[in-house]
Amino acid sequence: MRIALIGVGLIGGSVGLAARARIDGARVVGWDPHAPTLKTAVSVGAIDETAPTLEAAVADADLVIVAAPMKQLPATIQQVLRAAPAECAVTDVGSVKHPVIEAAGEDGRLVAGHPLAGAESAGVHHARADLFDGATWYLVPHERSHGTRFEQVHRFVSQIGARPATIDAHTHDRLMATVSHVPHVLANVLVEQVGEASGEDQSVPATGPSFRDVTRVAGANPPLWGGIYAANAGALANQLDRVIERLSDVRDRLRAGDDLTGWQTTAAQLRRRLVDEALTGDELVELRITVPNRPGAIAELALAFSKAGVNIVDISVAPLPGGATGMVALWCPLEQSTDALGLLDELGVEVIGGERLDEARRELGAQAAQAEPDLSDTPGDA
Amino acid sequence: MRIALIGVGLIGGSVGLAARARIDGARVVGWDPHAPTLKTAVSVGAIDETAPTLEAAVADADLVIVAAPMKQLPATIQQVLRAAPAECAVTDVGSVKHPVIEAAGEDGRLVAGHPLAGAESAGVHHARADLFDGATWYLVPHERSHGTRFEQVHRFVSQIGARPATIDAHTHDRLMATVSHVPHVLANVLVEQVGEASGEDQSVPATGPSFRDVTRVAGANPPLWGGIYAANAGALANQLDRVIERLSDVRDRLRAGDDLTGWQTTAAQLRRRLVDEALTGDELVELRITVPNRPGAIAELALAFSKAGVNIVDISVAPLPGGATGMVALWCPLEQSTDALGLLDELGVEVIGGERLDEARRELGAQAAQAEPDLSDTPGDA
Repeated sequence: MRIALIGVGLIGGSVGLAARARIDGARVVGWDPHAPTLKTAVSVGAIDETAPTLEAAVADADLVIVAAPMKQLPATIQQVLRAAPAECAVTDVGSVKHPVIEAAGEDGRLVAGHPLAGAESAGVHHARADLFDGATWYLVPHERSHGTRFEQVHRFVSQIGARPATIDAHTHDRLMATVSHVPHVLANVLVEQVGEASGEDQSVPATGPSFRDVTRVAGANPPLWGGIYAANAGALANQLDRVIERLSDVRDRLRAGDDLTGWQTTAAQLRRRLVDEALTGDELVELRITVPNRPGAIAELALAFSKAGVNIVDISVAPLPGGATGMVALWCPLEQSTDALGLLDELGVEVIGGERLDEARRELGAQAAQAEPDLSDTPGDA
Repeated sequence: MRIALIGVGLIGGSVGLAARARIDGARVVGWDPHAPTLKTAVSVGAIDETAPTLEAAVADADLVIVAAPMKQLPATIQQVLRAAPAECAVTDVGSVKHPVIEAAGEDGRLVAGHPLAGAESAGVHHARADLFDGATWYLVPHERSHGTRFEQVHRFVSQIGARPATIDAHTHDRLMATVSHVPHVLANVLVEQVGEASGEDQSVPATGPSFRDVTRVAGANPPLWGGIYAANAGALANQLDRVIERLSDVRDRLRAGDDLTGWQTTAAQLRRRLVDEALTGDELVELRITVPNRPGAIAELALAFSKAGVNIVDISVAPLPGGATGMVALWCPLEQSTDALGLLDELGVEVIGGERLDEARRELGAQAAQAEPDLSDTPGDA
C-alpha cells in the first residue's frame, strides 16, 4: 500500500510512524510546504521518502492523508483530488468537516476524517506511533463517497490503532463546537476576565486549580485555532447562543436568591455520565449484507448505524459477481447486535450471514418475547 | 498555644495536623457537629482532644479556626464569638468573606481568612499536614480587627506553611468570583450543553482533553458549592454579566466573519502572564514602624500594602510603653522595599529602623536620582 502524507506535522508525522510500524508493506511518501519539517519527518522515521511536489506525492498513491491546518485545508483537498489517481482514497484530519466536503464537491474518493488526538499541534518531533491508540477517529463520508474508499479509510484508521466512528458533517461540526471549540472560547474569555481583575487594584497571586484547569487551553496555537474558529463560525456561534442563554439563566437565579444546590447535583450526575460513558466491549458479531453497488450506499448505512448509536468496529466491502451489488461485512459489539439487526430490518436490508449471527438473533428473539407477553396466558387472578 | 478547631473536615483536619507537627507547644482541641468525623480526626492525629460542645472547645482558646461550610459559617462565627475569651483571635476558612465579616459586626477579635487549597472537600481522612505548603492564604481583616489578632493569625498561617496575603472583603469576593466561582459555573454549563447534544441524535463517544479540563470541576460537592454560590451571589452575578458580554462579542465577531487569530494570541499572552506570575523571591527587608494602638490600625496598613501590590511576608506587633502606640515590624521582599518605603511615606508613617533598611533606602535613593536628573548639570551641546 502506497500512502501519501500531505503535511507532516504532529498528526501527519504520527500517522506516518504508525503506518510504517503497523501495516505490512506500507510505503509512506511525504510532502510538506515547509522544507525543514519534511527533513525532520525523514529523520524521525515518519516517512520513507519525500516528494518534490504535492502532485508527485499523490501521483500513484492508494491512500492520501491530508494533514493541513484548517485555513489551507479546502484548497489543499482540491489540489490533491486534481492530482490523485482515480482508484485512490483521500482523507484528512481537520477539526471542521463541512468546508472539506464542500471543497470535494461530488468526488467519491473523499471520505473526510478527524482524529480526536493531539489537537494542540506541537510539531513533527513530538510525533508518536501510538498517538491514536484507542482514540476516536471520526469518519465523515458524504452523499457520494464510494463504499470501497470508506472501507479503505476505515481499515487504515483501525490498523494504526484508532477507533473509527462514522458521523455526518453537520452533526460532527456541531458536536466539535460543543465539546472542543466552546471550551476554547470559554478558556480565553476567563483569562481575559481575570486579566482585567488583576489589572485593577489587586494582583492575582495564586490562581486556584479550577482556574488552571478551565484555562489550560486558553490561547492554544493561535494560527491553528484562528482557522478552526473561522471554519466552524456558524455552529460555534449557535452554541455560544445557548451558552449565553444558560449563563443568563444562572445569573438571574443568583439575583433572585435561588438555591443552586440542585443544579450543581445535576451537573455532577451529567459529568459522571459523560465521562464514564465507557466504550463498548470487545465481543463482536459479524453481519453480512448486500448493498447496491453505487456511490454513497455504504456511507448511508454507516451514518444510520452512527445515528442509532451502534458502533461499527470493523467493515469490509467486496463487489459481488455481476457488479450490481456488493457484499459488506459489518462487525459490531455483541450487546449492540440486536439494535443493529433491528435497524437493518427497518432499512429493508437482509442479513445473509455472519459469525455469531445466531447468537445475536436468539438474543433478539428473547427480547421480543419479553417485550410482547402472550396475552392469552395472563392469569385471571394476578 | 491553645487552638480550637470548629469543624474538622479536610481543611480543619489539615490545619490541626500542620499545627501539631509544626508549632511547638500547640495543643489542638476539636469540635464538629458530626460525631464520627470528630472521632476520625482524633484517630488520624488531627486533634489532641475533643470537646463536648463548641462552647467548651473555644472556652480557653488563644486562637479559634472555624472550618464550617459557607451555609453554616456566619451563624457559627457568631456562636464562637459569644463563647470565646476576650483575648482570643478568631478566624475562618470560608470561600466568601463578606457574610463572615457582617456576622462578626464590630468584633475586633475576628480576622477572616481563606486558604486557596483543597476546596473540593474530601473529608478528614484526606487531611495532610502539608496541604497548605506554599498556598496563598488570604487574610481579610475588617475595619476594627485588632492588630495583635491580625498578627496572631498571620503568624499562625505562616507557621503551618501557607503564604498569607492581605486583602479586603469586597476585592476578595470579586476575585474569587472571577478565578473560582465563574469557572465552576462555566464547567456546569458546558456539561449541560454537551449533555443536551448527546441526548439528541448523537452519542458523545470520546470527549477531547479540552472538554475534560474545562469540566473537571463540574458538579463539585453540591451542598458545599450551593452554599458558596448563594454566599457570593452578587459578585458572581456581576462577573457572569461580564462573561456574557464577552461571549456575545465573540459570537458577533464569528457571525461577522472576523478573523479571531489576534484574539487567540492575546489570550495566549494573558495566560502566560497570569500563570507565570511568579511569587516574589526570598530576600527580605524589615521595616519597623509605630502605629496608634487602636483597632483597625494594622488592618488599614496591611490593606494599603495589599492594594499597592506589596507582599507582607511576615509581621510582628508589640505594644510600646505607655500603651498609646504599638511597634510593628513588617518584612517584605527586597525588590518591593522601595514601593513599601514610598507607600509608608505617603501614609505619613515614619520608618524607625529594621534589618537591611539601609540597603532598601540606598536603592530608593538611586531610583529617585535616576528619575529626576539634576537639570543644572545638563550639558549644553548634547
